[in-house]
Amino acid sequence: MDVITLSHGSGGKITHNLINDMFYKHFENDILLQQNDSSILQKLNGRIAVTTDSFVVKPIFFPGGDIGKLSICGTINDLAVSGAKPMYITVGFIIEEGLEINILEKIVISMAKTAKQANVKIVAGDTKVVEKGNVDRIYINTTGIGLIEDDKLNISANNIQEGDKVIISGTIADHGMSIISQREDLDFDVDIKSDCNLLNTLTKDILNASKNVRIMRDPTRGGLATTLNEITNHSSRSIVLYEEDILVKDEVMSMCEMLGFDPLYMANEGKLVVIVSNNDANRVLEAMKKNPLGRDSMIIGEVINDNKRSVYLKTEIGGTRMLNMHEGELLPRIC
Amino acid sequence: MDVITLSHGSGGKITHNLINDMFYKHFENDILLQQNDSSILQKLNGRIAVTTDSFVVKPIFFPGGDIGKLSICGTINDLAVSGAKPMYITVGFIIEEGLEINILEKIVISMAKTAKQANVKIVAGDTKVVEKGNVDRIYINTTGIGLIEDDKLNISANNIQEGDKVIISGTIADHGMSIISQREDLDFDVDIKSDCNLLNTLTKDILNASKNVRIMRDPTRGGLATTLNEITNHSSRSIVLYEEDILVKDEVMSMCEMLGFDPLYMANEGKLVVIVSNNDANRVLEAMKKNPLGRDSMIIGEVINDNKRSVYLKTEIGGTRMLNMHEGELLPRIC
Repeated sequence: MDVITLSHGSGGKITHNLINDMFYKHFENDILLQQNDSSILQKLNGRIAVTTDSFVVKPIFFPGGDIGKLSICGTINDLAVSGAKPMYITVGFIIEEGLEINILEKIVISMAKTAKQANVKIVAGDTKVVEKGNVDRIYINTTGIGLIEDDKLNISANNIQEGDKVIISGTIADHGMSIISQREDLDFDVDIKSDCNLLNTLTKDILNASKNVRIMRDPTRGGLATTLNEITNHSSRSIVLYEEDILVKDEVMSMCEMLGFDPLYMANEGKLVVIVSNNDANRVLEAMKKNPLGRDSMIIGEVINDNKRSVYLKTEIGGTRMLNMHEGELLPRIC
Repeated sequence: MDVITLSHGSGGKITHNLINDMFYKHFENDILLQQNDSSILQKLNGRIAVTTDSFVVKPIFFPGGDIGKLSICGTINDLAVSGAKPMYITVGFIIEEGLEINILEKIVISMAKTAKQANVKIVAGDTKVVEKGNVDRIYINTTGIGLIEDDKLNISANNIQEGDKVIISGTIADHGMSIISQREDLDFDVDIKSDCNLLNTLTKDILNASKNVRIMRDPTRGGLATTLNEITNHSSRSIVLYEEDILVKDEVMSMCEMLGFDPLYMANEGKLVVIVSNNDANRVLEAMKKNPLGRDSMIIGEVINDNKRSVYLKTEIGGTRMLNMHEGELLPRIC
């Protein structure tokens, strides 16, 4: 079987063949094909949003996605939740000597397909190959550039106010438990699908539905509880969540219980949490439900004014639990 | 000694502490401190240049630089040679569990210092930690955004014409031989310094000196011969180089000869090759010589019109040698 060798990362003829036969072939667009040290984009009329993310997920293929799809979705989603229209992505591959070329091509095709779906161009790339044992198959960095067309748009954790509603676009913990289900040696047959998906249509629908969107976030690494802690930390408010309104798929919950994981801290890769004014909450909820990615959207909590910058969970049995930012490592290489 | 643990990459409290105490502390600027999923930049008035690069250099500290300095210089130089003013950089770290925190901080300080020197802001970042043995200490991706202020600027290999002169800003092969001198178990004492440096003042001086700059490139991985092959491949011209005019430091040449390397294929990380019209060549050469980074600039060749898209070397003994793009791996993890 053809495999990646150190020569593929040398910058010489074999690197150029790989670039032509693999990357240019699948990522093809006018900007990438400039083939210069830098790619030149059109002028962008508006503020520019930038985000970067490296992906080291293990395994590289999992139910519902792969490292390629994840690397495009993750970066596009970070742009989308900031209110930007995702425009361009750069891709940096670090590949282990010996990776099968057809595996790389599968990943590249998955990236190309996802980028196309989001109408985003992959405009620049870089490939490094390291000796066997110095990287686990393949790591991918993606950096995204988006355009904020609305000059007045102001999305920030600072904006949250007492009474604002917290909405999430569906079930939680699917991605995290999908990855762990592929790693643990489980005795029963479980096939939990990652929610890995593009959120850019959903953020657009939300921003069209309300001018009072305070903040949007995708609760990835660290899950919903960590994301909401980040929001309250940057505000002077607290958030209370209602456990009974937070959806978790049965098989995901069983697995969490079996392995001792809290779904509130498990990664999502296709969910969106939005905080919006009380007045606009139902309008935003309805808009989200009309989008296939937000069909199961729920109002799950609200902003309160206790100045403790905390996140509380009202449990189904009537108690209240603090949801602190977690301290240890829950699950390495989830994304 | 304090070391990086998997918790530093978990997205939880320990990750946030690392971000605050290390990255925000050293990279501090208004945009980074927005602390959002995406960073929002000012509007950019002009075409935008984008480039991405991952750095896996081994060892991570070498005479004349380190992986941090290299990761900033490499990306800034790719922007600069495209005629852009480097503006913003994003940084993605992939760190091996167990890396000493003071080593990480040295690298981060080196990045911050280099970015400051280039007047570039580090606007977004990401940190992943992988289990021991799944990355060799630290890999860094940097993605750069630059601004092309001159709407008419057109730098492209397609522009080269018969009679154009090829100028290089100094000696070649310093970076490549510096790295290898740190790896091979040599019997004698050799301390070759990498030329790792920022080229953005030099490109500015060149563009100020002439409106007939055809193309600029930094001959990194694959060296001068590979870079010139890339240029001729994208044009319909050939290039002839004069060996006697190409400067190589004595200690670099000795080491190349001893180890069987051709300095024309060895990486540079602070050199610039520019192709300019015959008429403007001396003016550009003088401008380059006035810049400390271009003090040893030389006209080393010219463009000829044989339609073979080849690079030739006129040797000191009077022969002519084809300089093809190399096929194998010369030296893995040079950058």
